Amino acid sequence: MNRALPPIGIIHSGFKTKEACPIQGAFGPDNRGHIEIFPEYEAGLQDIEGFSHLILIYRFDRAGDVQLVRKTFLDDAAHGIFASRHPCRPSGLGLTIVQLDRRNGNILDISGIDVLDQTPLIDIKPYVPRFDCFPEAREGWIADKKWRPKPSGRE
Amino acid sequence: MNRALPPIGIIHSGFKTKEACPIQGAFGPDNRGHIEIFPEYEAGLQDIEGFSHLILIYRFDRAGDVQLVRKTFLDDAAHGIFASRHPCRPSGLGLTIVQLDRRNGNILDISGIDVLDQTPLIDIKPYVPRFDCFPEAREGWIADKKWRPKPSGRE
Repeated sequence: MNRALPPIGIIHSGFKTKEACPIQGAFGPDNRGHIEIFPEYEAGLQDIEGFSHLILIYRFDRAGDVQLVRKTFLDDAAHGIFASRHPCRPSGLGLTIVQLDRRNGNILDISGIDVLDQTPLIDIKPYVPRFDCFPEAREGWIADKKWRPKPSGRE
Repeated sequence: MNRALPPIGIIHSGFKTKEACPIQGAFGPDNRGHIEIFPEYEAGLQDIEGFSHLILIYRFDRAGDVQLVRKTFLDDAAHGIFASRHPCRPSGLGLTIVQLDRRNGNILDISGIDVLDQTPLIDIKPYVPRFDCFPEAREGWIADKKWRPKPSGRE
């Protein structure tokens, strides 16, 4: 059932190390970066300019070993990996929603980015509030967690 | 750069054919189904009960050939695949947000499901409105599209 997963581009950000990388983009909406789409995929960007926000699926290419239950960046108590957005997960895939500021050919300027510089991008999907916005959703253990610096040494 | 992507479970729904499958879960919030997590991944569900909504990343395992620019289910004009949620995309990955109704061990009862029965599940991430809800986002070409039946024969 395994299947190769080709990157369609590279995410460029100002975050060169895991320690510098924010926990979530929503905590740093002004963090800017850009996406470089490989030329062979550029045609797939047609009409993307109409969307203000994009869902990025990317590879956590510098994550540590998978742990099914673990402490997270936002909490010192352990949680299941599927109840967390932590990188050390079986799929090795990250998901983030960014603002699309401008398209220039195969380059997308974005803000609200929270991923490491040079991260391989796997997919882009347009963010559609009618499909993706559930303001009343319960936030589980994350509900009372505020932004904090990443705990030192927490892979 | 390719990387194998193991399924963590199977999505069960009432949709046996592509024609029966709804275009988006938001158009059918009462469509129920369940997720079966493989026993070796069940530990990763710890604390998931606290979240009311989940982001599912799954494999479009019955999608047709990739087309970078194509007509979609919601529109007869062609759009870039990265400006669309259509299945025929380079990653072969789908994304949907469902409501978590109940957990029973390795089984998650869900509603608002819009994927084919027996779809391989790749990842679950908790939906967190603070991270994922952007009610003001612009919907591009999708903005004036209402629900409609899937056009016949549109893979």
